[in-house]
Amino acid sequence: MDPLQRLRERMAELADLGALDMLATWDQLVMMPSGGAEARANQLGALAQLAHERATGEEIGEWLAALEVAQLGDLDRDIVRVARREWERSCRIPADLAAERSRAHAEGQESWRRARANDDFAGFAPALERNVGLARQYGECLTQCGTGPYQELLAEYDFGLETAMLRELFSALGAALPPLAEQVRAHSPRRQLAVPVDVQHTAVRNTLRRVGVDQQGWRLDVAPHPFTAWIGRSDTRLTTRYSDGNVESLLSSLHEYGHGLYERQIDPALVRTNLGRGTSMSIHESQSKLWENHVARSPAFAEVLAGELEGAGFPLAPADLHATLTAVEPSLIRVSADPLTYPLHIILRFELELAMIEGELAVIDLPAAWHDGMQRLLGVEVPSDAQGCLQDIHWGAGSFGYFPSYALGCLIAAQLWEAMESELGPREEDLRRGEVGPIKAWLAEHVHWYGRRLDTIPLIRQATGRSLDIEPFLRYVAPLAARTP
Amino acid sequence: MDPLQRLRERMAELADLGALDMLATWDQLVMMPSGGAEARANQLGALAQLAHERATGEEIGEWLAALEVAQLGDLDRDIVRVARREWERSCRIPADLAAERSRAHAEGQESWRRARANDDFAGFAPALERNVGLARQYGECLTQCGTGPYQELLAEYDFGLETAMLRELFSALGAALPPLAEQVRAHSPRRQLAVPVDVQHTAVRNTLRRVGVDQQGWRLDVAPHPFTAWIGRSDTRLTTRYSDGNVESLLSSLHEYGHGLYERQIDPALVRTNLGRGTSMSIHESQSKLWENHVARSPAFAEVLAGELEGAGFPLAPADLHATLTAVEPSLIRVSADPLTYPLHIILRFELELAMIEGELAVIDLPAAWHDGMQRLLGVEVPSDAQGCLQDIHWGAGSFGYFPSYALGCLIAAQLWEAMESELGPREEDLRRGEVGPIKAWLAEHVHWYGRRLDTIPLIRQATGRSLDIEPFLRYVAPLAARTP
Repeated sequence: MDPLQRLRERMAELADLGALDMLATWDQLVMMPSGGAEARANQLGALAQLAHERATGEEIGEWLAALEVAQLGDLDRDIVRVARREWERSCRIPADLAAERSRAHAEGQESWRRARANDDFAGFAPALERNVGLARQYGECLTQCGTGPYQELLAEYDFGLETAMLRELFSALGAALPPLAEQVRAHSPRRQLAVPVDVQHTAVRNTLRRVGVDQQGWRLDVAPHPFTAWIGRSDTRLTTRYSDGNVESLLSSLHEYGHGLYERQIDPALVRTNLGRGTSMSIHESQSKLWENHVARSPAFAEVLAGELEGAGFPLAPADLHATLTAVEPSLIRVSADPLTYPLHIILRFELELAMIEGELAVIDLPAAWHDGMQRLLGVEVPSDAQGCLQDIHWGAGSFGYFPSYALGCLIAAQLWEAMESELGPREEDLRRGEVGPIKAWLAEHVHWYGRRLDTIPLIRQATGRSLDIEPFLRYVAPLAARTP
Repeated sequence: MDPLQRLRERMAELADLGALDMLATWDQLVMMPSGGAEARANQLGALAQLAHERATGEEIGEWLAALEVAQLGDLDRDIVRVARREWERSCRIPADLAAERSRAHAEGQESWRRARANDDFAGFAPALERNVGLARQYGECLTQCGTGPYQELLAEYDFGLETAMLRELFSALGAALPPLAEQVRAHSPRRQLAVPVDVQHTAVRNTLRRVGVDQQGWRLDVAPHPFTAWIGRSDTRLTTRYSDGNVESLLSSLHEYGHGLYERQIDPALVRTNLGRGTSMSIHESQSKLWENHVARSPAFAEVLAGELEGAGFPLAPADLHATLTAVEPSLIRVSADPLTYPLHIILRFELELAMIEGELAVIDLPAAWHDGMQRLLGVEVPSDAQGCLQDIHWGAGSFGYFPSYALGCLIAAQLWEAMESELGPREEDLRRGEVGPIKAWLAEHVHWYGRRLDTIPLIRQATGRSLDIEPFLRYVAPLAARTP
């Protein structure tokens, strides 16, 4: 058989296995009785091992070699280009390093869980040190032309991002945001809005229905840590969470919708190829942040959301809802941070993980560095490591290079939103009526359609005419900081 | 590595892939938005192909050869014995025949769907003929020592069953049941009981809770065709269906519970081996039928069920409920048949599929043969092929040899029930109080524990001291036939 055909079949198989992994993970977090945990770990393990074997087989190298001289159409050329890139990267990782990392990540997560529960950083330090060491080794295996190990770790989530560029962006952002945060510090904003869960539930369903979430192709369920699963192009599963104490569900459901919409609007020709999913973590996060920050947190859409809450039995003024959804207050915990200070949490993590990987920060000095960073960037005192450097699972799980995408998502969302409004005109009137069709169409055309054919930076350039830039985000947060409470 | 170790790892992998297949199928039937169908077909296809490849690899033959001379413990000897049997069977099937069958089955199901909708047997005949021909070829590839192709088709579902034995059993049963059915023909039993769906829902949940269905290890959902999925030893997913017009949900949920309980009570040492699931279709069906016929349809347990219905707001006399759950009336459609006439539907399908596979019945003559058989066995006139030989999907899907398990399940359940009562004493008093602990323990010890270490007939012999026998079932149905309405 034709090597292109074989390569495409293998990519289709890997796409199917990836979808099954996502299904099994979704089920685990949403449907599975707790008794299923042990069996599920085995099932996911078997799937991961099989997928790894099929993704790294020598036969792929033979097909790629045969395809070097082939005449290919545009799409096939992209398929082969990305396949070669990934296969070559995987071949540079020794099998025993891969196995050792996967053990260390599993053990690291357990160690982190115990350490956080007991506020015991010292108990976690050896596992973290092992993870840092293995991540550095991993990055070094992939390093070419002096890119450095951290850049290669980034590349696992965001191919083509450069450490130097992130340093520069985050340093500028880290200088610009704290004064804005300081400015609102004097306010004591009202951030709680006690909307009963059943009211939120109705409002969320109806709001999602407005933006196109139908029963034929979507599900909405509850999960303790909201996420989205795309099991098939027309099988998107959003999750959110409800609490009587706040209206996070309104933001979180639209955030997840952004992830889901991205995957659904990719060119159907890319389905079951290696290009048929979102191109990177930062672009994915930009899609969720666009719906969370620029739609759900806009004053115009607050009228729609308030209308839905009122329809479900909780009347309130749109301006009050908007104030609640955009209240700013520097705080300790990343996942509950406001839209202005959120990137500061990420900048801190970026600085620290980069320093650990590059050997400039010893693991044992992490708590002190965290404490200083929180003081410098957010002006808050860290009362304990559990609420400090132990709050996130990522490093315990060996994920280095992942954090930046959270802040990049905020930046890219703002940049895309400006580009879109400069092309389509202000979205305010449309949003007031809950009309999001043109937004969806613009995103489809400029971002979603390409799948993985364009990496992060080329995609941003094509959609906005510029490289990544912090100014649009600063323009987005300025009014939040300036506003009186 | 040790060949035993390798074999066990492969079996564990196949068990994990099997569980993922079950999860993906459960999700498809219970949770998936309809838009996910196309992607799911690809995912299940990829999984099936991978599992087939891993189950038939040449390396397995090498491990088995190395193990021929090994000293093994009892459990390992069974693992190797069953692995060898399955691997050798799979090697006798040419790859192109396997592929051709899988295409023919997919196309046959589509053809069947159209034909049933249009009551058009002639439209289905070519697909059926192809399926019959391929099934015969398949059986012939496996045939050794003159067993005949049908027996090998049976072996796919029930290893060790002999065609001659089934002929004999079903012929005796086909002679004994029609006079009993005739006897109740004069009655006009009241079979409908319009219990509102929400009442049934509560009663079903509470009844299942009584028999041990907790939230930690079980789920209960709704499916158009109830089934059970065992994703892990402590992750069992029952389904049932509700209708305002009848109380089928009470029977169906306990039926599915029987399937689920079987898989949960297998020796934990067999988990992730090739022995860690129910041994055959007929034993599986015997477990569901035992809970459906001998528990849910018993006069004693009717008191529990009536109590649960009353607790949910629908008071009725236990005797009335029992009469409804056991009313007998010969009818056209297998899936809604009563407990007495149900096996007659199966006997007809067995006779016809055996005759088709053995070339004694031409596909084109099937409708006439069906018509005659329904008249002879059930005394009913068949008004259309849609309500006749087109009613079941099995032959369209290429499943020959599967039907007998439905009747065998009824027989084996009755036989096990008698053996259990002769050991434990009558269950009546316990059932009246909803106490099923001793039943579960007896089934665990005599049936479930063995997984696939014992095939159908040896298992029945061990549990009951006899081979398969129709008398217990006849003793079970006699009072149903004799009863005045």
